[in-house]
Amino acid sequence: MLSEFDLIQRYFNWPTENVVLGIGDDAAIIAPMKGVELAISADSLVVGRHFFDNADPYKLGFKSLAVNLSDMAAMGAIPKWVTLSLTLPQLIIDQHESWLSEFSKGFRELAQTYRIELIGGDTVSGPLNISIQIIGEVEKGYCLRRDGAQLGDDIWVSGYLGDAALALKHELRNFKLNDNEAFYCKSALHMPIARVELGQRLVGLANSAIDISDGLMADLGHILARSEKAATIELSTIPVSEVMKRYLSTSIAIECILTGGDDYELCFTAPKMNRDAVILLGRELQLPLTIIGEITQQKSQTPNLVVINNNKKVILEKNGYDHFVT
Amino acid sequence: MLSEFDLIQRYFNWPTENVVLGIGDDAAIIAPMKGVELAISADSLVVGRHFFDNADPYKLGFKSLAVNLSDMAAMGAIPKWVTLSLTLPQLIIDQHESWLSEFSKGFRELAQTYRIELIGGDTVSGPLNISIQIIGEVEKGYCLRRDGAQLGDDIWVSGYLGDAALALKHELRNFKLNDNEAFYCKSALHMPIARVELGQRLVGLANSAIDISDGLMADLGHILARSEKAATIELSTIPVSEVMKRYLSTSIAIECILTGGDDYELCFTAPKMNRDAVILLGRELQLPLTIIGEITQQKSQTPNLVVINNNKKVILEKNGYDHFVT
Repeated sequence: MLSEFDLIQRYFNWPTENVVLGIGDDAAIIAPMKGVELAISADSLVVGRHFFDNADPYKLGFKSLAVNLSDMAAMGAIPKWVTLSLTLPQLIIDQHESWLSEFSKGFRELAQTYRIELIGGDTVSGPLNISIQIIGEVEKGYCLRRDGAQLGDDIWVSGYLGDAALALKHELRNFKLNDNEAFYCKSALHMPIARVELGQRLVGLANSAIDISDGLMADLGHILARSEKAATIELSTIPVSEVMKRYLSTSIAIECILTGGDDYELCFTAPKMNRDAVILLGRELQLPLTIIGEITQQKSQTPNLVVINNNKKVILEKNGYDHFVT
Repeated sequence: MLSEFDLIQRYFNWPTENVVLGIGDDAAIIAPMKGVELAISADSLVVGRHFFDNADPYKLGFKSLAVNLSDMAAMGAIPKWVTLSLTLPQLIIDQHESWLSEFSKGFRELAQTYRIELIGGDTVSGPLNISIQIIGEVEKGYCLRRDGAQLGDDIWVSGYLGDAALALKHELRNFKLNDNEAFYCKSALHMPIARVELGQRLVGLANSAIDISDGLMADLGHILARSEKAATIELSTIPVSEVMKRYLSTSIAIECILTGGDDYELCFTAPKMNRDAVILLGRELQLPLTIIGEITQQKSQTPNLVVINNNKKVILEKNGYDHFVT
């Protein structure tokens, strides 16, 4: 059996360009560029909570990095360095040749796409837990924050919402998709695309941004709370895929779109005067960018976030996915 | 029940001084000082592997940060920022008022001692897993690495070795300590002191360094492997506590000293010409610093690390603690 040290050497120690001292010491040493600040975030994926026991390790490696990239996207940061703490069950350690090589392949391919360096981490045995810390660079004083939304801002989202949540409902057998539909939605669930370039390009255009991981309502809610604003969004304007369009008459589809989570699209607010620039940016990136509502004044005793459908307020039972409210 | 968001706000969001943007956004923003490089490391503590189910949450909060501080010490870095990813079982979430407040207290007290800022992380539910990433500053080009040991270097260790391992054997009922002895050794096990200041002061004096987390032989072995050197150490010179001295005739004591792990002392190598300076430093820090051997030439077909006792080589069954070799 490989030791922890050998395991890291074999599966997670690929050549780095941008690192003073990489894997193999007590810590890595990096040298950020002059004039930059660093954006740092950490996210864990836990078996039974974020993925099933039998999850495809290649996709898991990809997704665990993608969800962290998404945090960098939401800050407008250039992702640069990452650490990986893996807790692995004995079963996986015993079969590590296949599981670990697939996991590291998915992780590595995505890392190399963005030229991100894996600079450290550790592996221990225990219930599967994937904990990642990512570090990116932002120009000093420029980043996308949650707390900058201004009165009258357009509220935008990228891509299409709800497909990942629909795939999860299909996998849990709460909803039936046909094979083609399932294939499409599962790719949104298991291999999400972080909007890294969009985030970087929104610096200077957007007043606030967040990535949609817990569901549109919950995440837009964070922008509103931090910005001390309210918002009205129009359900019919929320961009959805061709698959989702077929099910728009069902309440499950509406729930997926508004509160589903795992979208990893960006929700951002921008002044109306930047509308054309944002539209051009979307065209350049070949990514749908859609206005779904407007930032309004916060009033006491009314909800911060109002969703309108056919001139009526939509009432939802839960306000997006929260890991601790079930 | 508190949501994840409230939980972080309540227990882990204390005022920061040194951070551009702290907890509450998609990522934190930090501004490293000019002319520094950053040392980054990540370590996880897993229930059943690093601590028992019923571990005191205050001590656990303390220790989980201490072991990460120890990595900074081993690099000669000034620890500055930390992220914390907590996976918590439902039982703890339901009782979070006590468990979380104690855990965060232990973590926070140690963080404040070193003026370290908690800048991010997340909490999810699942088997208890504490994953910490720490970031420190080193002067550009100056840090303590594992790969710098030179022929003829003295091999030094700080403090006393083996007490934590002895406490663990006592807790597992493989060894019987009296109450006073147990109290003393348990404090080494559950509230280790990272040698942060020592590490910083060794920059420029030591050629290589590592912290002893997996046991003296395994960790000194890492220095030798990375430096492509060998070493001879003298068992009788390894510094041990008054408690350990009482048991030196037992093989369990020898095993604890050489391979026990969880010491979080520093093992470092330094040129003989720096001997007086190291001795002075130890006196200034009121910390025992002891020469235990010498770096030698690497030869093929002989072990890299030889332990001598009464002019005989010590043969040990295992080479320190490895998380994957049991």
